[in-house]
Amino acid sequence: MPVGPPTATQTVGELGEFALIEALIGSLTPTPGVLIGPGDDAAAITTTGTLLSSVDVLVEGVHFRRDWAEARDVGRKSVAVNVADIEAMGGRAVGMLVGFSSPGDLPVAWAREFAAGLQSECAAAGVALLGGDVTRARDVTVAVTALGVTDGVEPVRRGGAQPGDVVALTGRVGWAGAGLLVLGRGFRSPRVVVDAYRVPQVRYGAGGVAARAGAHAMIDVSDGLLADLGHVAAASGVEIDLYRDAFDVPEPLQAVAAATNTDPYSLILTGGEDHALAATFAATSPLPEGWFPIGSVRASGPDGPRVLLDGVTWESATGFDHFRSGRS
Amino acid sequence: MPVGPPTATQTVGELGEFALIEALIGSLTPTPGVLIGPGDDAAAITTTGTLLSSVDVLVEGVHFRRDWAEARDVGRKSVAVNVADIEAMGGRAVGMLVGFSSPGDLPVAWAREFAAGLQSECAAAGVALLGGDVTRARDVTVAVTALGVTDGVEPVRRGGAQPGDVVALTGRVGWAGAGLLVLGRGFRSPRVVVDAYRVPQVRYGAGGVAARAGAHAMIDVSDGLLADLGHVAAASGVEIDLYRDAFDVPEPLQAVAAATNTDPYSLILTGGEDHALAATFAATSPLPEGWFPIGSVRASGPDGPRVLLDGVTWESATGFDHFRSGRS
Repeated sequence: MPVGPPTATQTVGELGEFALIEALIGSLTPTPGVLIGPGDDAAAITTTGTLLSSVDVLVEGVHFRRDWAEARDVGRKSVAVNVADIEAMGGRAVGMLVGFSSPGDLPVAWAREFAAGLQSECAAAGVALLGGDVTRARDVTVAVTALGVTDGVEPVRRGGAQPGDVVALTGRVGWAGAGLLVLGRGFRSPRVVVDAYRVPQVRYGAGGVAARAGAHAMIDVSDGLLADLGHVAAASGVEIDLYRDAFDVPEPLQAVAAATNTDPYSLILTGGEDHALAATFAATSPLPEGWFPIGSVRASGPDGPRVLLDGVTWESATGFDHFRSGRS
Repeated sequence: MPVGPPTATQTVGELGEFALIEALIGSLTPTPGVLIGPGDDAAAITTTGTLLSSVDVLVEGVHFRRDWAEARDVGRKSVAVNVADIEAMGGRAVGMLVGFSSPGDLPVAWAREFAAGLQSECAAAGVALLGGDVTRARDVTVAVTALGVTDGVEPVRRGGAQPGDVVALTGRVGWAGAGLLVLGRGFRSPRVVVDAYRVPQVRYGAGGVAARAGAHAMIDVSDGLLADLGHVAAASGVEIDLYRDAFDVPEPLQAVAAATNTDPYSLILTGGEDHALAATFAATSPLPEGWFPIGSVRASGPDGPRVLLDGVTWESATGFDHFRSGRS
């Protein structure tokens, strides 16, 4: 069956696989340093030294909802969350591959807007879209793989935190969680937190700056500050103590907390998906611009590695398990 | 809720996300050349020169069925199809990342067997499993990204075929298609074609050998020989003529063709998923071991780039569109 030009109501099933690949990645302009871009069996770039790689999967109904976010936002978020992982190693993302699955009745317009979001966020992050694969599935599923370089610095791992270190943060925490909370209750405001949930504001470049400033350990805060610092504590064999007073409660979080009868510190300490960076630095190192201290590292005691708030355990859910909770 | 040790009937939803990641990639032994493996925000390897990358997505009900293939086979296939893309550039796969999505009621035993298959095929291909992500979705979905190196040779593209070239093939064609055909009709034999559908036999290393032998163009035969050589013809701006007599019809394909009233050459020319490699070489070059000639390249005529069989168009479906057909 011949395929005409796309129409406003056309579905990806009508458009066909090869035309969808073209729609998703065909409008790309060549990127410097990319030897072979989309369209061959594999892409080719030139690299030297340490190559970083990370994969994230975003699934409709789990990580986004089509009625809660525009297609363009889903595309942007898919890039941002994955680049954040490269940043968290102290690296600089250079390339990205995208595996896209959707039901056949997905409007082509949605796929095109998604691709536009992918491309705009790749441009913002300085990342080349190297290739992709598209296929059919019941849920819209986006698998993104980011490739990054370290520009000569050692990758910063989770396990390098040392007793005496300062724990520092750059970026926002609690905003996306607040957005998810209000969306889940049927509201669309405050708009700033809803937007924060739809597209995280990742500080591109902050990870490399932290690595060059001597960060001992670093992590992407994706599951919530306590949960992710728990990974740092466990990998480093240390105890981390956070200071409640280190955190301002921004006005939008105050508003959401009041309207939903929620402890605002629960948003800050356990809200996920903002993709801030948390790191530890020697106490003698000046913190890089945009980082602020939130706690300290000490040797772990008889209870083993853990994260405390002002010296005591935070009594609440810490983080989020995609298989266990019913969040959608 | 505390989580006990896994049981035979435990589901991934009961096991939880972090434990599932551990089950999928936790038993890995360190691989030489891998600076940082699974468990941090990103993996790190050392590379120099040209880095190849490719992504493939396999979806339950589209690319595999749990009642047609064991979990271990699905894991092996996920690796093989993706490494084939690196081979088709003349490269050598070195690393792989896996995004795994599944419904919460998937038995943990299935996920573990899948992981065992991933790991065994990675070992066979000499590939390090670098990292992964797991999440919840209605369909089991596997997104694999392979990273590869070229060991100093130029990547072999689809667009390099030249008039006068010999078209050559290594590996099997039609076997997986025959397996899919019999499974689709409710049979499980001949076992050899069913096995070919479940796990393609990719000739690891053949792509690099072809590149060093001077291959002008190369492609992974995933969608069917005519369809994939059509990509070579289009990218190279040439006409490709295949010789029917170049292809033996192996006994299992004869049996399937007879039992299903199918033209065996339809299996050979349009059957997908065997992941043979097709390439073009200068007529003066000796073909590498394991490659056999199947046709020739000439300048395209007024009808533009195309693929013929003994000088005429093959009248049948050529290849497979995951969005358009109802295959499952």
